[in-house]
Amino acid sequence: MMTKTVASLLLVLFISGGASLAFAQRRKSVVDLIIRGGTVVTMDGSRRVIENGGIAIKDGRIVAVDTAALMDLNYGARQVIDAQGKVVIPGLINGHTHVPMTLFRGIADDLDLQEWLTKYIFPAEAKNVTEDFVRVGTRLGLAEMIRSGTTTYCDMYYFEDAIADETSKAGMRGVLGETVIDFAVADNKTNAEAMAYVEKFVRHWKGNALIVPAIAPHAPYTVSEDHLKAIRAFSDRTGAPIVTHISETKREVDDSIKAKGASPVDYLNRIGFLNDRVIAAHMVWVSAEELGLLKKLGVGIVHNPQSNMKLASGVAPVPEMLKENLPVGLGTDGAASNNDLNLWEEMDTAAKLHKLISNDPKVVSAQEAFEMATIRGARALHLENEIGSLEQGKRADIVIVDLDDLNQTPFYNIYSDLVYATKASDVRTVIIEGRVVMRDRRLLTLNEETIKTDARKYRERIIQSVGIKTVPED
Amino acid sequence: MMTKTVASLLLVLFISGGASLAFAQRRKSVVDLIIRGGTVVTMDGSRRVIENGGIAIKDGRIVAVDTAALMDLNYGARQVIDAQGKVVIPGLINGHTHVPMTLFRGIADDLDLQEWLTKYIFPAEAKNVTEDFVRVGTRLGLAEMIRSGTTTYCDMYYFEDAIADETSKAGMRGVLGETVIDFAVADNKTNAEAMAYVEKFVRHWKGNALIVPAIAPHAPYTVSEDHLKAIRAFSDRTGAPIVTHISETKREVDDSIKAKGASPVDYLNRIGFLNDRVIAAHMVWVSAEELGLLKKLGVGIVHNPQSNMKLASGVAPVPEMLKENLPVGLGTDGAASNNDLNLWEEMDTAAKLHKLISNDPKVVSAQEAFEMATIRGARALHLENEIGSLEQGKRADIVIVDLDDLNQTPFYNIYSDLVYATKASDVRTVIIEGRVVMRDRRLLTLNEETIKTDARKYRERIIQSVGIKTVPED
Repeated sequence: MMTKTVASLLLVLFISGGASLAFAQRRKSVVDLIIRGGTVVTMDGSRRVIENGGIAIKDGRIVAVDTAALMDLNYGARQVIDAQGKVVIPGLINGHTHVPMTLFRGIADDLDLQEWLTKYIFPAEAKNVTEDFVRVGTRLGLAEMIRSGTTTYCDMYYFEDAIADETSKAGMRGVLGETVIDFAVADNKTNAEAMAYVEKFVRHWKGNALIVPAIAPHAPYTVSEDHLKAIRAFSDRTGAPIVTHISETKREVDDSIKAKGASPVDYLNRIGFLNDRVIAAHMVWVSAEELGLLKKLGVGIVHNPQSNMKLASGVAPVPEMLKENLPVGLGTDGAASNNDLNLWEEMDTAAKLHKLISNDPKVVSAQEAFEMATIRGARALHLENEIGSLEQGKRADIVIVDLDDLNQTPFYNIYSDLVYATKASDVRTVIIEGRVVMRDRRLLTLNEETIKTDARKYRERIIQSVGIKTVPED
Repeated sequence: MMTKTVASLLLVLFISGGASLAFAQRRKSVVDLIIRGGTVVTMDGSRRVIENGGIAIKDGRIVAVDTAALMDLNYGARQVIDAQGKVVIPGLINGHTHVPMTLFRGIADDLDLQEWLTKYIFPAEAKNVTEDFVRVGTRLGLAEMIRSGTTTYCDMYYFEDAIADETSKAGMRGVLGETVIDFAVADNKTNAEAMAYVEKFVRHWKGNALIVPAIAPHAPYTVSEDHLKAIRAFSDRTGAPIVTHISETKREVDDSIKAKGASPVDYLNRIGFLNDRVIAAHMVWVSAEELGLLKKLGVGIVHNPQSNMKLASGVAPVPEMLKENLPVGLGTDGAASNNDLNLWEEMDTAAKLHKLISNDPKVVSAQEAFEMATIRGARALHLENEIGSLEQGKRADIVIVDLDDLNQTPFYNIYSDLVYATKASDVRTVIIEGRVVMRDRRLLTLNEETIKTDARKYRERIIQSVGIKTVPED
């Protein structure tokens, strides 16, 4: 019986004919996993799309991306995933979440922000948020995100160390920011406690392959100038990214001008807070000058179209951001204000919303929307050297998507198909750091039934705690 | 062995205890189908929501809607569908489609309307639209609509008789309008031919349980005044509804004022075209006065939020329409400009879009969005006595939806869950005119594989005919 190597070598000789023997004799490299076949959408610098492509993965990283034929020639692996007839894309990046709030999905909608916060969200949080709540909510959100092809998310909440633990166990990638805010919250009662928590949290996770620990000052209007400066100093010292909300509403900007004599961006710049480790969600109300400043400073921006629509916050100037080549990604925001963690719908909405607002159907093309959920989103999280595209050397965060569901038929254009026609339910297989976390729609690292059972227990408590009626009464 | 009736009677006696014997002795009515259990969202006049509800169906109509316990007491059926743990809703109504254009899904996106039409849509139509094309595209669109819980759609295209035939065969309900337009099109080369076609078409389908044949003048700017008047006379004589596009773009209104001295609505009113058999898609650019006029005349309106966004047409004043209680439904428009036939996403988008545009998160609540896709949509099609709610006497168009997918967990509020969290992929079973057309996500009246194969054949032709590149070239 011929060994596999000899058989391949003979095959190569047969195929290559007169090609140099040196080439034919080359030994196959053994890798951990090969994805073979399908349309590979690399999102690399030249936006290469490879028909009948292949990807070789070793030690959590991409070793090679090319045609399936070249993979067959050069690589061998025990595990091969057949992606024929499917699309292979970089894992999607959800740039802004509050993942445990998935347990609050739909507790209150269609309300003024103030009423929503004070009558529902704050009381529900005060009465329910514990470390266990955070773990249950995180697992629920992780399952929904993996199911829909998200491989990296950027979070801000309380008990973020527990979130990191659950995220790491699920094999998901996260930039996870522990909240710092100038009032007592579930996990920390004072700023001193919060800063001590973050110190320990960042030390614990630094260098982890999946988790980037971060510090998350809630917003410039809920954290004092001194505390913001201390947070920046902490980030400078540890290298931890800073996750925050900036210029979400018109009122925030007006209040900032009144109280500080400057817009949130100008104020934060004045106090030396902004730099290329900051990841700022929203940036709805920003001027062209501020965009120039953000670009110069390298601030990452996360656009949350559906959340901004639902809360009537406004529309971020995304076409201008793209024109200036700013690092802007896409986020869902928390499920309490969206009400899902579905990046496919954010891409679709982003592309359509900006056409409407710009009165120009050419802006935010399908390709640009897809970029925001992948490589540009990676730039927003300052992780463009690690994730966001399928390239040699990058982390192996890869998603295989069906291409022949009814809602995708017929197929004419790859980016249009992905952004305007593909649904979360078309995601088939998800790989993070080279590990298969969902195969053929079955989650491998999370138990869906247990997650739902746990979530339902909290549902009962939450319903009691804020008095919710699930259906109208007769 | 006890007969079923005796057993039920004993059970009733056991349950009712001292209740009157007359009640216990009542015979069970035999119906065709009972849906038992689940949360029944009736959308009746009082918006009753029944926990653990039940629906009895006979001869295509709803005989009773109440609790499951009452169904058990009063009705027997050979076929019982268990809906426990699920939501039972009226079938969704897609108020505006061009269903064969599903074959053009994504052939060209992110373009100016003129370029999109003249470089892609018109040439693709000229080179491809035949009766067979229309049949294949219709089956594709019907399958996607049924899969996503749509039970009625309102269409405008060519060869509408073939569309009616396919729709009827699939067991779907449609208000189907044959296009009349002042230039030669695929099926009719002159107005005389078109009017003769419509005459025959309407006569053929009138009185059909599923099909409402209609006449569809394309728009006031593509059909002459004389022809519009003749169409209105035809509608008066036959009772056929008139399906049309009105005030979709600002340019259309400006051109109308220039050419006719009046806006499209005022012009159509002046020539006596508008009445309560008209179904008008878009109505984006209308004044408060025009809304008052439309209300007085009883014109049905169909709002297409995603299509209007994608083509940068503008935003219809839906909050004002709802305030005035106008008959306004929701539509997807053709898949060439959306790019799907998914009413769940239209509901979600409608609710979020109008919050943003009105700068008020309270407008277009989840319940109002759901109404637009059901009972208010039925009013827009002038079918509110037949469909749109689960009530005794109405056609049995019923959809059973999962309530425990990850993206729906936890469940707090029924309308919020349906509009903001439920996806097309959560639709489980679809019943139209009392017939089960999808059971547990399996289509029973359409062959999905054949549909896809047929669609792919047209794809090849269409790609050749207009020169499309499916992926960027290296």
